[in-house]
Amino acid sequence: MATTNTQVLLASRPAGWVTEDNFRIVEAPMPEPSEGEALVRNRWLSLDPYMRGRMSDAKSYVPPAALDAVMVGQTVGEVQASRHPSLVPGDTVLTDLGWQAFGVAPAKTLRKLDVSRIPASYYLGVLGMPGITAWFGLFDIGAPKAGDTLVVSAASGAVGSVVGQLGKHHGCRVVGIAGGPAKCDYVVRELGFDACIDHKAGGLSEALRAQCPDGVDVYFDNVGGPILDTMLRAMNLHSRIVICGLVAEYNATEPYGYRNLRAVLVKRIRMQGMIVFDWADRYGEAVAGLAALVASGKLRYRESIVDGLENAPKGLIALLKGENFGKQLVKLA
Amino acid sequence: MATTNTQVLLASRPAGWVTEDNFRIVEAPMPEPSEGEALVRNRWLSLDPYMRGRMSDAKSYVPPAALDAVMVGQTVGEVQASRHPSLVPGDTVLTDLGWQAFGVAPAKTLRKLDVSRIPASYYLGVLGMPGITAWFGLFDIGAPKAGDTLVVSAASGAVGSVVGQLGKHHGCRVVGIAGGPAKCDYVVRELGFDACIDHKAGGLSEALRAQCPDGVDVYFDNVGGPILDTMLRAMNLHSRIVICGLVAEYNATEPYGYRNLRAVLVKRIRMQGMIVFDWADRYGEAVAGLAALVASGKLRYRESIVDGLENAPKGLIALLKGENFGKQLVKLA
Repeated sequence: MATTNTQVLLASRPAGWVTEDNFRIVEAPMPEPSEGEALVRNRWLSLDPYMRGRMSDAKSYVPPAALDAVMVGQTVGEVQASRHPSLVPGDTVLTDLGWQAFGVAPAKTLRKLDVSRIPASYYLGVLGMPGITAWFGLFDIGAPKAGDTLVVSAASGAVGSVVGQLGKHHGCRVVGIAGGPAKCDYVVRELGFDACIDHKAGGLSEALRAQCPDGVDVYFDNVGGPILDTMLRAMNLHSRIVICGLVAEYNATEPYGYRNLRAVLVKRIRMQGMIVFDWADRYGEAVAGLAALVASGKLRYRESIVDGLENAPKGLIALLKGENFGKQLVKLA
Repeated sequence: MATTNTQVLLASRPAGWVTEDNFRIVEAPMPEPSEGEALVRNRWLSLDPYMRGRMSDAKSYVPPAALDAVMVGQTVGEVQASRHPSLVPGDTVLTDLGWQAFGVAPAKTLRKLDVSRIPASYYLGVLGMPGITAWFGLFDIGAPKAGDTLVVSAASGAVGSVVGQLGKHHGCRVVGIAGGPAKCDYVVRELGFDACIDHKAGGLSEALRAQCPDGVDVYFDNVGGPILDTMLRAMNLHSRIVICGLVAEYNATEPYGYRNLRAVLVKRIRMQGMIVFDWADRYGEAVAGLAALVASGKLRYRESIVDGLENAPKGLIALLKGENFGKQLVKLA
């Protein structure tokens, strides 16, 4: 058993792109659970685009991560010791313990996971925030009808890959947007999208016209920036845009200037921002639906794994640059 | 009785601001009604910001007005001769006959108006497209709750003045945005808004903070451009933006670049474009509600009148520059 606790701290706030210098790895004393708490050994750390926002002190939907504190994030871990009757050593739990090897938390903040039929790491992805985001964003905001054309950006990512597959099961024509031929190939061949446009190849407008001959009814946006601006021109009358992530803006020092907002009026588009927290009282509904699809093999899912907590900064940087492939995780020792 | 028909034709499409050169005044033969049609003498012509869009051939929600044809627009007129049993000479009707002294149209396209208790011209304003736009935009898209803060741009205009008064009756704190102290004074003193910000005075952000201490729950946008961009930063969590007009863009040769769209995600804003045509099957509902308020003196309304069809181009140009005050009309001879 380890005697110290490896932690990754937020050392400084990034100006533009995140660098490894923004983090500092330290050894802290092993924490001990107080009454009502449990000690957890983290097995999987989730890396997500939202983390870029938390590293900044710009006003956002949650306060920024604190400097010189453990970097924030969700993990799946194993209970080592418990001072609350609801948990026993060996239980697998979902936590907000962040970028550290061990942590203590009140037992009531730890969600016990059933790992008898579903791999533990899935609760950070397809059955976790990304999957739940895809579910409510698509169905509650995108409101697709069978026969609609659905376009999804970051289509090979943790959210986009689920959105597109749900759209297919719902009877939509689904077109992904992803960076590079390998991702596009995966999106079409493995995930079953009807088509995928490589935005790095240029000519997005022309490709959209070719792949969406009836226009676009729902655009699920995970990226913002020039791709969102181009999509605005491709939308149909009374179409919907789900604003789920603006990765293109997270690393920009200047906000992007959107020039096609006129389409919102002309096409009577409904554009709505979403954060999954707003559906907190309905998570169970999405998890049940997603778990049934995963269990029956109808929802394909891919993980991209970085080995070792010390490599988490590299993993996040790669994710923000779009170099990952599927749900990005860190496997802890 | 006149023997020729004065018409204002669209002579050329504007590049940037509309000029009088974009129109040509001609004398055409007096039209004669065929079977099923009526001859109408126009008494009032409505001037509206949407006309700028129709003068352009950029893709929009309706086809552009044709060159060398009578400029499009709604009128209220008097039936002179009828070859359909539903209309008789002397009837007052709402028409789409456009910028001309007389016109013929199928009787079934002419809506007979009750002018016994409501002035005929009101059917082009508070009980016409602008009022109906205000009604459905505010209630169906803005979805205000009592106690909400509602901000309305072009607050002294045909749509904005109705939006704000409906908001007050609904129990909202209502803050207008208008150009110049005279309009702001009118909006507060005569229309009963809680406050009005003069955007020409500069410092819109600071004024919004002062006048909307609890943030903004509903923004009814009639202007677009930098005012919309600034409003994005003032919006509350889960707020709504009604995109009803983008006057700031109509005359720009380059579209405006919106830099604060990130707020849509962070604040989970719902932004939706609207055109009143989408509620065509429910117009009666709005007209009934508005007429009751007008009849009981609870809805104040002001008209800005240009005299003579030949001055319609000047009137439209002034409207697009924000020089009008209230609903802009042309009174025909």
